[in-house]
Amino acid sequence: MKIAVIGISCTKFKEHWDKSLQDLLAQAQLEAIKDAKIFPQQIEAIFTGNMCSGIFSGQLHLGSMAAENLSLNTPSTVIEGACASGGLALRAGILAIQSGLHNVVMVNGVEKMTDLDTEQITTGLMAAANEEYEHSVGATFAGLNALIAKRYMYEFGLTREQLAAVSIKNHKNGALNPLAHFQKEICIKNILTSTIIADPLTIFDCAPISDGAASIILSTPEFAKKLLEKRPDQKIVYIIGSAQASDTLALNCREKLTEFKANKIAAQIAYEMSNITPQQIDLAEIHDGFSITEIISLEDLGFFETGTAGKATENGETSLNSKISINPSGGLKAKGHPVGATGISQAYEVVIQLRGQAGERQVKNAKVGLTHNMGGCGTTSVVHIFSKE
Amino acid sequence: MKIAVIGISCTKFKEHWDKSLQDLLAQAQLEAIKDAKIFPQQIEAIFTGNMCSGIFSGQLHLGSMAAENLSLNTPSTVIEGACASGGLALRAGILAIQSGLHNVVMVNGVEKMTDLDTEQITTGLMAAANEEYEHSVGATFAGLNALIAKRYMYEFGLTREQLAAVSIKNHKNGALNPLAHFQKEICIKNILTSTIIADPLTIFDCAPISDGAASIILSTPEFAKKLLEKRPDQKIVYIIGSAQASDTLALNCREKLTEFKANKIAAQIAYEMSNITPQQIDLAEIHDGFSITEIISLEDLGFFETGTAGKATENGETSLNSKISINPSGGLKAKGHPVGATGISQAYEVVIQLRGQAGERQVKNAKVGLTHNMGGCGTTSVVHIFSKE
Repeated sequence: MKIAVIGISCTKFKEHWDKSLQDLLAQAQLEAIKDAKIFPQQIEAIFTGNMCSGIFSGQLHLGSMAAENLSLNTPSTVIEGACASGGLALRAGILAIQSGLHNVVMVNGVEKMTDLDTEQITTGLMAAANEEYEHSVGATFAGLNALIAKRYMYEFGLTREQLAAVSIKNHKNGALNPLAHFQKEICIKNILTSTIIADPLTIFDCAPISDGAASIILSTPEFAKKLLEKRPDQKIVYIIGSAQASDTLALNCREKLTEFKANKIAAQIAYEMSNITPQQIDLAEIHDGFSITEIISLEDLGFFETGTAGKATENGETSLNSKISINPSGGLKAKGHPVGATGISQAYEVVIQLRGQAGERQVKNAKVGLTHNMGGCGTTSVVHIFSKE
Repeated sequence: MKIAVIGISCTKFKEHWDKSLQDLLAQAQLEAIKDAKIFPQQIEAIFTGNMCSGIFSGQLHLGSMAAENLSLNTPSTVIEGACASGGLALRAGILAIQSGLHNVVMVNGVEKMTDLDTEQITTGLMAAANEEYEHSVGATFAGLNALIAKRYMYEFGLTREQLAAVSIKNHKNGALNPLAHFQKEICIKNILTSTIIADPLTIFDCAPISDGAASIILSTPEFAKKLLEKRPDQKIVYIIGSAQASDTLALNCREKLTEFKANKIAAQIAYEMSNITPQQIDLAEIHDGFSITEIISLEDLGFFETGTAGKATENGETSLNSKISINPSGGLKAKGHPVGATGISQAYEVVIQLRGQAGERQVKNAKVGLTHNMGGCGTTSVVHIFSKE
């Protein structure tokens, strides 16, 4: 597989009280077109990842909105897979090009969350879990992830400090990212003395509620080649692996809490498809909805042995320009997590890094990058591998 | 394009008070697998069309649910495009096979609507229109379609009786369909004396609120050929055209109210792709969310000249085994309209007809069929063409 990324954009992630869902979506779409230096009319199909606009804004049918924003009548479809909606939309865009039916496809991710109060948002997000067996009995995602963290700590001796090292590292990266919701470093004391959301997770273990949008424009390698002939300064990055897997909605049906089967399956297929090993990945954007999900995902994706990712993080092995640069953008924790936008914003970071345009947070000599987007507690997992060539 | 349909199913459409969203989805999935005579493990990817489960049931992430119902970890994605969600999911399944990444794909459509009261449902469905310019000022879909009907009557002299002929014909067909929500004929008097929902539309001009699910299993023609070698009694139908188009969310941005641009674009592409003319279509399942949308769509799809479809319907030219059999299933009006399921249930009807298994409502000598699924008031349109060979 070889799909060209010819344009990309990401809005600032924050509480956008002055912008509507449509404003954010339109901004990302127009900036990606500007980045690709193509005409909107060249876009043959649109896919938009979104989870909660129906619940949060009473607005579904964002496919039509995305086409209307560009005055197009092209096929335009919404893709939903909870917090993995963006990543699944990217995969839908890739399939559309691979199908031979389309040469140039736009993929968006968008979420407008902050128009509601926190309780309404937490309730809305629980639609990603099992309504009957989890939500209706009072579980929240922080609660479910706390269960997972407790079990992982029990099995592998992960310390509270090691868990905290994830958020400290991600905030350190986020401080260098002008698009991040929190451009601010935090220290171990901040985390250990902050509000407990669900023991052992404090507020600094949980990704924030953010608004934002991101867009990516994909094409066949042939289209990208022609584009390069006209605009030799254009920097093209390629997607060489795409894989997706599912697990049970409810945690009680899983064999293990300390690994995510969907992650393992998706990663294996993506590595095989791209003929890349975990050791060849220079940087990865990992779905750190909670600090514990970064630890587990690092292992599921083959970067560290089972039970060792906490220690490795504490030792700085996942810091910027170390063994592997994990979440150079700041991750969901510091960059923010407008759920439907997250998967595309991860692709934005990897593409910008591979282009060498990441400024202060640039990973040196970055050639191969990976994005890992997850819905629920490892319920849907989608992995993409990007290459400079 | 040539995609094989190797299995199909549809639940009864009705108020399923004894069944959950998951029950309905699982029933359709298992019946389609039984129909295809394959093992669940042979399904490589799943797409599920659903519009409102987040709003109606607090349950999103149906992708995971659909995979879990079959104990699979395969890629499983939700597709949303308002009332066209089912049709768009079918197209996503087709693209997945065309991409070469998958050989066998399951596509589902599901909606559980009747757990809420009518006001909540009407509000939820308005998420398919423009929230800012239509819903927030009190518009409903019946209201918007009434505007369209009024304008069409003014421009083309459509009579109330001609409009009524759509629902009378669809109920006549639905009476022959054991899966239909209303297996009951209606007469002109029923319509003209029934409750006005939004003038000129009475309750018999509007599709009902129903629960239901439908599934279709697609494969490459090569896989279908091998299946036929093992099971020569299996009846395979092929999808030879697939097209989708978008229009503005809000009606006030349209040039005309009396035709749907998205319909016209999608139909033209689907006809070209399949090398079929409207005159070659033996039967079509048309999106009659409201009686007026069947009239307009019949013209947009090229079956009748602009302004003449009402008269043609009144003359019986769209009745079962007439010039063209329109909505032999009973259409959305009589068969029912569980929104996310509708697009797949249309495919069910066409496949069953082309197989010659439609019983009392069988279209004689049916060789080529068409499905037309619409989201909003012609906002998203998706057209598929099916052939016996």
